[in-house]
Amino acid sequence: MRVTVFNEYLHELEDERVARVYPGGIHETLEAAIEDHVPGAIVRSATLREPEHGLPQAVVDDTDVMLWWGHKAHGDVSDAVAERVQRAVLDGMGLVVLHSGHLSKPFLRLMGTHGSLKWREADEKERLWNLQPAHPILEGVPDHVELEQEEMYGERFDVPEPDELLMISWFQGGEVFRSLMTWRRGLGRVVYFRPGHETYPTYHDPVVRRIVANCSTYAAARMRRDDSACPNPAALESVPNPGKEHVLKRS
Amino acid sequence: MRVTVFNEYLHELEDERVARVYPGGIHETLEAAIEDHVPGAIVRSATLREPEHGLPQAVVDDTDVMLWWGHKAHGDVSDAVAERVQRAVLDGMGLVVLHSGHLSKPFLRLMGTHGSLKWREADEKERLWNLQPAHPILEGVPDHVELEQEEMYGERFDVPEPDELLMISWFQGGEVFRSLMTWRRGLGRVVYFRPGHETYPTYHDPVVRRIVANCSTYAAARMRRDDSACPNPAALESVPNPGKEHVLKRS
Amino acid sequence: MRVTVFNEYLHELEDERVARVYPGGIHETLEAAIEDHVPGAIVRSATLREPEHGLPQAVVDDTDVMLWWGHKAHGDVSDAVAERVQRAVLDGMGLVVLHSGHLSKPFLRLMGTHGSLKWREADEKERLWNLQPAHPILEGVPDHVELEQEEMYGERFDVPEPDELLMISWFQGGEVFRSLMTWRRGLGRVVYFRPGHETYPTYHDPVVRRIVANCSTYAAARMRRDDSACPNPAALESVPNPGKEHVLKRS
Amino acid sequence: MRVTVFNEYLHELEDERVARVYPGGIHETLEAAIEDHVPGAIVRSATLREPEHGLPQAVVDDTDVMLWWGHKAHGDVSDAVAERVQRAVLDGMGLVVLHSGHLSKPFLRLMGTHGSLKWREADEKERLWNLQPAHPILEGVPDHVELEQEEMYGERFDVPEPDELLMISWFQGGEVFRSLMTWRRGLGRVVYFRPGHETYPTYHDPVVRRIVANCSTYAAARMRRDDSACPNPAALESVPNPGKEHVLKRS
Repeated sequence: MRVTVFNEYLHELEDERVARVYPGGIHETLEAAIEDHVPGAIVRSATLREPEHGLPQAVVDDTDVMLWWGHKAHGDVSDAVAERVQRAVLDGMGLVVLHSGHLSKPFLRLMGTHGSLKWREADEKERLWNLQPAHPILEGVPDHVELEQEEMYGERFDVPEPDELLMISWFQGGEVFRSLMTWRRGLGRVVYFRPGHETYPTYHDPVVRRIVANCSTYAAARMRRDDSACPNPAALESVPNPGKEHVLKRS
Repeated sequence: MRVTVFNEYLHELEDERVARVYPGGIHETLEAAIEDHVPGAIVRSATLREPEHGLPQAVVDDTDVMLWWGHKAHGDVSDAVAERVQRAVLDGMGLVVLHSGHLSKPFLRLMGTHGSLKWREADEKERLWNLQPAHPILEGVPDHVELEQEEMYGERFDVPEPDELLMISWFQGGEVFRSLMTWRRGLGRVVYFRPGHETYPTYHDPVVRRIVANCSTYAAARMRRDDSACPNPAALESVPNPGKEHVLKRS
Repeated sequence: MRVTVFNEYLHELEDERVARVYPGGIHETLEAAIEDHVPGAIVRSATLREPEHGLPQAVVDDTDVMLWWGHKAHGDVSDAVAERVQRAVLDGMGLVVLHSGHLSKPFLRLMGTHGSLKWREADEKERLWNLQPAHPILEGVPDHVELEQEEMYGERFDVPEPDELLMISWFQGGEVFRSLMTWRRGLGRVVYFRPGHETYPTYHDPVVRRIVANCSTYAAARMRRDDSACPNPAALESVPNPGKEHVLKRS
Repeated sequence: MRVTVFNEYLHELEDERVARVYPGGIHETLEAAIEDHVPGAIVRSATLREPEHGLPQAVVDDTDVMLWWGHKAHGDVSDAVAERVQRAVLDGMGLVVLHSGHLSKPFLRLMGTHGSLKWREADEKERLWNLQPAHPILEGVPDHVELEQEEMYGERFDVPEPDELLMISWFQGGEVFRSLMTWRRGLGRVVYFRPGHETYPTYHDPVVRRIVANCSTYAAARMRRDDSACPNPAALESVPNPGKEHVLKRS
């Protein structure tokens, strides 16, 4: 399994409160989580300020599942790279969108919605409830997971109906949130997993790490194929007018 | 109910075979279908070559449900208008995408997928099977509907899982197709209905007309609201650090 | 719209704490909620201790949507009546299952699952979040609804994936719950709405009453037809062996 | 992976046309299909006329996934065994229901619907279209699969909306059918796969065999746990009245 962790990697460089929590960058912590849980995984990272954000076509082509963490600079991701990631998903690549990635370009292109939600940073408690203990993503995950401090995300989360709703969060301040969901898009699988604000040690939590790794394994490509074309096959059964001339002449 | 029928309106002007079937344009036929079935509906049309394709913001704002027929010139629809239609759907407007609209910009923006499919024009028979006779869109629609000649569309249709799958087509040449589906996007409802190739009199068929009208009624906006923002509400319950300063300072 | 409200009607007669909240029985309060919101609705009630629980075939046949409230005596509902209600739903009738009806026989027959959940009665606050403000059931319902005191129901709620998830509850004690869901079964629609414990004045709350009425309108039968048989139609197209003798001879 | 293949095993003994196609019984052919594709699988069979139909509690407990083929004697399956299988699925066991098993007791208990459909035996061609080539069940399965002769099953198939729709069949006589679907029930996974009429050599087809094996692997239990009880946990957060006496006293 070839995993590419995209991290915006700005907060960690610009704010010492974040740097203290993730000294090597959020990507380094996520990479370790996957390596710990997926023996043999080949993991690399990509960050915003690299050329093509570290995601040239060759890297994307060599990726079975991509993780995406971004927050303050979604607009700085080039449309070309966002489209490249979208197309890779349609071709079969997995995409695991984390936390503030709900406003990232690749996610919004794949969802078609605003991705909007309520938010609040107040050091409050989050408790994620496990709705499908038999799902592969929740293998080894208990009935509920508590995070002592997290940013709050509240409904209505403006996304399409998920194919699978796996966890719902309770927040101390009174909100709820669909925190773990999956959608098929084309031949690929998109997973959204909510926790992971940059000022909290969420990705050091052992259960969160396990879920992130499970998401990656679940979403990883099983095949890769460009299905963007509309083929014009001959009929398999007899039809009245197999050689008919088509009206369409593109002006 | 305020209905706007968008029609590309090129085939009818450029090809006499199409003009014979739809002398006033496909939009005129669709408008009549709605007027026949929805008493009191206020129906207008919009076509590609009008300024802003006949879809300036004021028209979109004044529309509860939009029908979309396009085929040969999807690329000529401006990105601004495509985004305007997408946003209107997220705000609550209904969108009924017809036939070759599967490759239209508004539909693809809302789906996030290629919208690709197999196709063939060979005067073959299509038979649409009714999977949910109790659904409002299929009110008055029999067990199956036969169209003596239609263009074939075959699976795999590259779209997200629908919220509702209402009809499946059988084609003489050996293919099948999910021909009537709905998806919620934001506060709006998208419906895709397959039949309607420009060289066949499909939109003159009484059952097809009824389905088109039912789609429109079903998808029509029940509310309209811009939910693109991410609000930052105060907590409803006591939280540890309600006045916390947020790290995010957009560079 | 013909509505039948089934209420077990035991708690109100046996416990004065309940009788104080619902002196005429929970059914009387629910009936009034529907009459207030659905002009012209024909509403009647049925209770456990009546012959056939007030649900003889003629009453069920004359019902477009049934509400079901039961709690302590699910086992006393006869299998014949439970099957009658199940079949009516498959034939097109709507069924709105309320609160502790999650363990009622008709609901479990239609879901095929245990219907199990966590529960606690501790006078705690419930806040229901509105996930689909444009859905007909949530017409006129605000962003969230607060009930000062309710019984807690917590996930995992053992039900099939809903067709629509409309509200999620937050509970003061730390749990969450999918509180408003719909499923199509056969030609009918099942709705589950969580609140309504017998010791709290929940069904006197104006927003709850509106939701209950909206559920009823949404689920009400659009048609009624027995589709239990497996027809053996002649082929619509030419087949190799139309008169073939079938092996099946029931022993 | 421990697999139990239930086969009614009557047609093969009673009708020589069937015996010629499946001399060792349909179960033997299905067992071989799984053994061929799933190295290390432990496969056994169970048939209707054995005590408890070969499905005593110990066998069911020792089964990760059960296949079910039945046709003419669904009514002879005891309710106790049907409930045992249903509960095993809710506890996590996989169930792969084949062909005429659409009317079997375990399937109907899990679906809650009639399971009705149209049927015709006329030696006609079936072509199954692959809607999700990246799904594990369709690994190694081409764009479409042709069966030269099969029984026709036609829509409307009276089942709940599937979680996943994977294949749709085209039939020579003019019908279509959702031929491969999955539903989660409790902690278990139910798969329905249409082909397999007793008079045709369908289960000798290499692609069909692969799909049957893939279904089994996909549905096989990942965990096993009885979740039928409704726990009454203490609150995780402070609540107003943690020791409140509950009204419910079962009469």
